[in-house]
Amino acid sequence: MTAPLLVLDYGGTKLTAALTRAGERSWLALERHESPPGHDGAYERAAMIRLARSVLRGTRPAAVGVSFGGPVAHELGLVRLSHHVPGWEETPLAAQLQAEFGAPVLVENDANAGALGEFRFGAGRGSHSLLYVTVSTGVGGGWILEGRAWRGSGGMAGEIGHLRVAESGPPCACGGSGCVESLASGLAIAGAARARLLAEPSAGATLRELSGNEPERVDARLVSRAAAQGDELAASVLLAAATALGRGIGSAANLVNPERFVLGGGVTKAGDAYWAQLRSAARATAMPEVELEILPAEFTDDAPLWGAVALAEDLIEGRTPPAGMAR
Amino acid sequence: MTAPLLVLDYGGTKLTAALTRAGERSWLALERHESPPGHDGAYERAAMIRLARSVLRGTRPAAVGVSFGGPVAHELGLVRLSHHVPGWEETPLAAQLQAEFGAPVLVENDANAGALGEFRFGAGRGSHSLLYVTVSTGVGGGWILEGRAWRGSGGMAGEIGHLRVAESGPPCACGGSGCVESLASGLAIAGAARARLLAEPSAGATLRELSGNEPERVDARLVSRAAAQGDELAASVLLAAATALGRGIGSAANLVNPERFVLGGGVTKAGDAYWAQLRSAARATAMPEVELEILPAEFTDDAPLWGAVALAEDLIEGRTPPAGMAR
Repeated sequence: MTAPLLVLDYGGTKLTAALTRAGERSWLALERHESPPGHDGAYERAAMIRLARSVLRGTRPAAVGVSFGGPVAHELGLVRLSHHVPGWEETPLAAQLQAEFGAPVLVENDANAGALGEFRFGAGRGSHSLLYVTVSTGVGGGWILEGRAWRGSGGMAGEIGHLRVAESGPPCACGGSGCVESLASGLAIAGAARARLLAEPSAGATLRELSGNEPERVDARLVSRAAAQGDELAASVLLAAATALGRGIGSAANLVNPERFVLGGGVTKAGDAYWAQLRSAARATAMPEVELEILPAEFTDDAPLWGAVALAEDLIEGRTPPAGMAR
Repeated sequence: MTAPLLVLDYGGTKLTAALTRAGERSWLALERHESPPGHDGAYERAAMIRLARSVLRGTRPAAVGVSFGGPVAHELGLVRLSHHVPGWEETPLAAQLQAEFGAPVLVENDANAGALGEFRFGAGRGSHSLLYVTVSTGVGGGWILEGRAWRGSGGMAGEIGHLRVAESGPPCACGGSGCVESLASGLAIAGAARARLLAEPSAGATLRELSGNEPERVDARLVSRAAAQGDELAASVLLAAATALGRGIGSAANLVNPERFVLGGGVTKAGDAYWAQLRSAARATAMPEVELEILPAEFTDDAPLWGAVALAEDLIEGRTPPAGMAR
């Protein structure tokens, strides 16, 4: 019996640890843990190791793959920081896990890990290149080009959320405006819906009802539900978000021409009208000669965890040296 | 004495043939030819072979590199078409030139060839990745990623001219609007200046004078000259174009994060104010964490010809098999 692969997915408070074997497509064990807010990186690392030990039950893994929700120096196995939890700055996570579990470790940021997971095991199977786009609270993305992760010169590639698709719009977290994220993310959808409920007192009856008449409770999921129930305000907010995302995808297609776009994250479960508008806006933005294949992710939430499996398989099959080794 | 390398750059009526040796950075011979308009692909191919023979003077080349101004199936050595000259459709140009000159041939489109030329011999030397952007009549671009041309799944990558950076704007040749090309190309600059001259009868005195009071004679070069002489209308038209291009570059940086941007083509000679605005708009669009290096091309016009040299050198050094060979 070969030793199992240990995989971890850390999204900032949300943590998953799982065990599988190379070539298998199911879990020997999987546990999830959510830390209460307010803890720091040291606490979270301890929780990570505890959860990993719990799924390992005393066995030693053959390799460890980690998806981390934040900027990572992949080659060094170094976490740069977490945007959500303090105390992760410049953490040599690969070295720490390697010391803990006695196995080689690779660490990847969650967008690239998600891209790798979909590419190797999900909606990207059989393709040579793709952009994986995850649309939830924010909008992130990761590239696979010629079968390998493309991380960019400074590790910043894939930020389709900060493609500028409009001249103006609500301020974006990046400091700009008119970005895909500021128009198409879950937060953007919730914000736009709340603003319209305030501005149009007689519109959005279903959305008001679903939120118990408390506009601050409106989130992207409620907007999707209201739209599915025929709420016109909610539907038009969703279509505007789909349009912005579709423009970003069309522009990315013109610029990089990947074989596929694979879209995951909660917002992309918004239904057929959302997808139709997204595809139509992408088609209208892409040049006529540019072929577009836009698919829903197969792993709606666990693409990064499957990406961690791909990292661990690469380690034991010698395709990638462990983090920190000279290449 | 080793056999020379034959290189050709065909831009649609404009043709250059040159001879060099591997490792040398000067021409043994160089001739340029411009066909009168109205000819077809067969005529142009004959002119190409005539000009090549003229620089060869009876010697046989070791390899042939070709930059072609239009879509190309690089692996097949096939010209898809010319957007300017009829009769180039599905021309097996590599096979024809190979039969003619008895040497292996590689054909690349001019944007990718320009990227390769700047990467190997110009402003991209020493980098690992770049986007080459050429701003003249239109706006084109070519990628080098990890030292190799990235052509995209359908050979359409690099079209930064069709990144959508504004919600509206003049119609673009691609059928869309708000594209970089429709706001930042030489044609866009000329069109915007003409429109403003019509709309503002008391503005643009210098530009009017330079054009002999014939607005239809206004082109991007005249706009640059008028701006350099203090014409405020011309200066503001140029800055708007620089802003649109800068936004496209900033968005491309967020999406792909190349090490460098290398900008060539006539419009990029528009002067310091143009460059300052372009860099400022790119910086404002790129995320703060994304590093930006934006350089003028070293070969303002001959980057594609130097790219053809890189293709020919790759052939004789065995880095790339000739077009049409199995890979």
